[in-house]
Amino acid sequence: MKINGLHHRTIWPDSNDPTHIQIIDQRHLPHHLVIEPLQTVAEAARAIRDMHVRGAGLIGATAGFGMYLAAIAPGNETVNERLKQGGELLCASRPTARNLAWAVERVLAETQNIPGEEDKKKIAFTVACAIADEDAQFCRRLGEHGREIIRAISEKKDGAPVNVLTHCNAGWLAFVDWGSATAPIYAARDAGIAVHVWVDETRPWNQGAKLTAWELQQEGIECTLITDNTGGHLMQKGMVDLVIVGTDRTTRTGDVANKIGTYLKALAAHDNHVPFYVALPSSTFDWKLRDGMEIPIEERSGEEITQISGLTANGTIETVQLTAPGTRAANYSFDITPARLVSGLITERGICAANEEAISALFPDLA
Amino acid sequence: MKINGLHHRTIWPDSNDPTHIQIIDQRHLPHHLVIEPLQTVAEAARAIRDMHVRGAGLIGATAGFGMYLAAIAPGNETVNERLKQGGELLCASRPTARNLAWAVERVLAETQNIPGEEDKKKIAFTVACAIADEDAQFCRRLGEHGREIIRAISEKKDGAPVNVLTHCNAGWLAFVDWGSATAPIYAARDAGIAVHVWVDETRPWNQGAKLTAWELQQEGIECTLITDNTGGHLMQKGMVDLVIVGTDRTTRTGDVANKIGTYLKALAAHDNHVPFYVALPSSTFDWKLRDGMEIPIEERSGEEITQISGLTANGTIETVQLTAPGTRAANYSFDITPARLVSGLITERGICAANEEAISALFPDLA
Repeated sequence: MKINGLHHRTIWPDSNDPTHIQIIDQRHLPHHLVIEPLQTVAEAARAIRDMHVRGAGLIGATAGFGMYLAAIAPGNETVNERLKQGGELLCASRPTARNLAWAVERVLAETQNIPGEEDKKKIAFTVACAIADEDAQFCRRLGEHGREIIRAISEKKDGAPVNVLTHCNAGWLAFVDWGSATAPIYAARDAGIAVHVWVDETRPWNQGAKLTAWELQQEGIECTLITDNTGGHLMQKGMVDLVIVGTDRTTRTGDVANKIGTYLKALAAHDNHVPFYVALPSSTFDWKLRDGMEIPIEERSGEEITQISGLTANGTIETVQLTAPGTRAANYSFDITPARLVSGLITERGICAANEEAISALFPDLA
Repeated sequence: MKINGLHHRTIWPDSNDPTHIQIIDQRHLPHHLVIEPLQTVAEAARAIRDMHVRGAGLIGATAGFGMYLAAIAPGNETVNERLKQGGELLCASRPTARNLAWAVERVLAETQNIPGEEDKKKIAFTVACAIADEDAQFCRRLGEHGREIIRAISEKKDGAPVNVLTHCNAGWLAFVDWGSATAPIYAARDAGIAVHVWVDETRPWNQGAKLTAWELQQEGIECTLITDNTGGHLMQKGMVDLVIVGTDRTTRTGDVANKIGTYLKALAAHDNHVPFYVALPSSTFDWKLRDGMEIPIEERSGEEITQISGLTANGTIETVQLTAPGTRAANYSFDITPARLVSGLITERGICAANEEAISALFPDLA
């Protein structure tokens, strides 16, 4: 999608030197656009852990390129050994994201039986690029399916703007391009359908305030930032037509792990008869799990809650303390929305109900 | 309750000069303890509007003393005229708070038929002091009733700490003393019952992070700050035994207006069979209303969401911008929790179900 009118992806190999993997360091958005090169798997793992990059698809793509960087690293180990170690390092960087392990496993599987060290490295690069390209394609396709949900609401409203609420950033910044929750919105806009987005600020990391609001504005989509507390009130007042969120991991039964607070919005949507959709490329399914409550929930530093960074009047970035000294904070990053609260899953193959039968019918080759 | 070990109230007439009404300017907490004198009704109205003081009971007490300041103001109008004008000014300062209009009406009613201008002024002072004293007494009493709910849970848990979740600040800082949601917690502590409090930070104004966490720490109550997104996850994991919140206005049928986001916590409590109680002195009931959705919901500036203030490493207070320039934000301050989601109301006369029959039975003289 576009930044200052120019098309970007969130991750790409440098065209002059593909051993430098370029990312947008998202910690500096929306104040500064900082491009960072990753040259080692350790840098890729750190970029994931410290949230230079974040979001289901982008974590997967970064892991894919991280595996390539592991493969080409200097040293006496075999490429297979380096890939194994690199994969372990990457998988430890964030526990909840399904796409991470999926990308690592895919590079391992596709390189394993390739004879020849140099060929293995080439294949690792090819697979990493394919993971990124497919992520963009799958998001574009799921956007086309999701667009039809928005179109139907728009027609019922005689073309008045469709109010979509989203939580966190499941935008193009969370993937390689298009996004998951935002892809139907971008596709609707491209089809001439009027859309307005309520953007949850998404504490504590403020992905909504910093990323979603910014990327929608860059694409010219009407949006309004709200606190995470606000969605229920808006739904009670009939001001939300549709909720679309992303997911970091979805079980084969349709339970959804997503950014902490998603479950609260799903409850409010259910209580107010507002459709609640989850958008995901199939790489986010965890086919091994039946019960969402088994998904490991990441805990991050309490300082992400007690401190916050922003732009001062002088144009510098400053971190300020919000609480009294010694205030203890607990920072759980995700929660589980049970399938019973999900109206449907928007995937690259179409929309299905959030239950094992419907999911398996759409993905018989994967389930 | 205590600040640095010394007992305070949130509002009191200066002992040397009772025409100076002292408040804690809560905008500076938890970083600085600033005492501010109010000398005119306009200053009292501004203190309410700009949130130097906030919270149901404290807004009422400030309005009571504001009426007294109106009565004693210099000028050619009669005291009755000044009280009428002062009451209008005060009532316009914040639209959702029921205690505000209640205090104004009470001073008007009790001064109206007093002959003699000086006697009217004296009565205005007496009534304002009574409003403050009763607020403290009622909160203490409702705390004793609420303590028994906590005690029963504690006994079921064999004395393990009872985990109470609260939203916003319905602490002593929101009243004259004791608080509403916190009064049962302080009373439980005084009775030797182990309690731990999950404190919602309460965006956008961060009453939880700035006020509730601070006042609980000052009183030595174990607490952990969480984002507003977190309560649902904690309830799913069995980490919350009880929710207690305050209210800015409650209808005669038990619908509850409270800080935005309360409704989401009530939904999560209901979904996870966690008791959800609302604590209030009877001054917060709006006996005229049957439907919570008729309560006016205050909208405040979007800058409360896009900017934030905190303490820099240098010890100065700095405001930083969190969003891209031009980001539009909508800032609704309250939402309505329907009575069907409320386990009970904790009042100074005891605990009752959140329905008209039970409320009227407890308050036959008021309902």
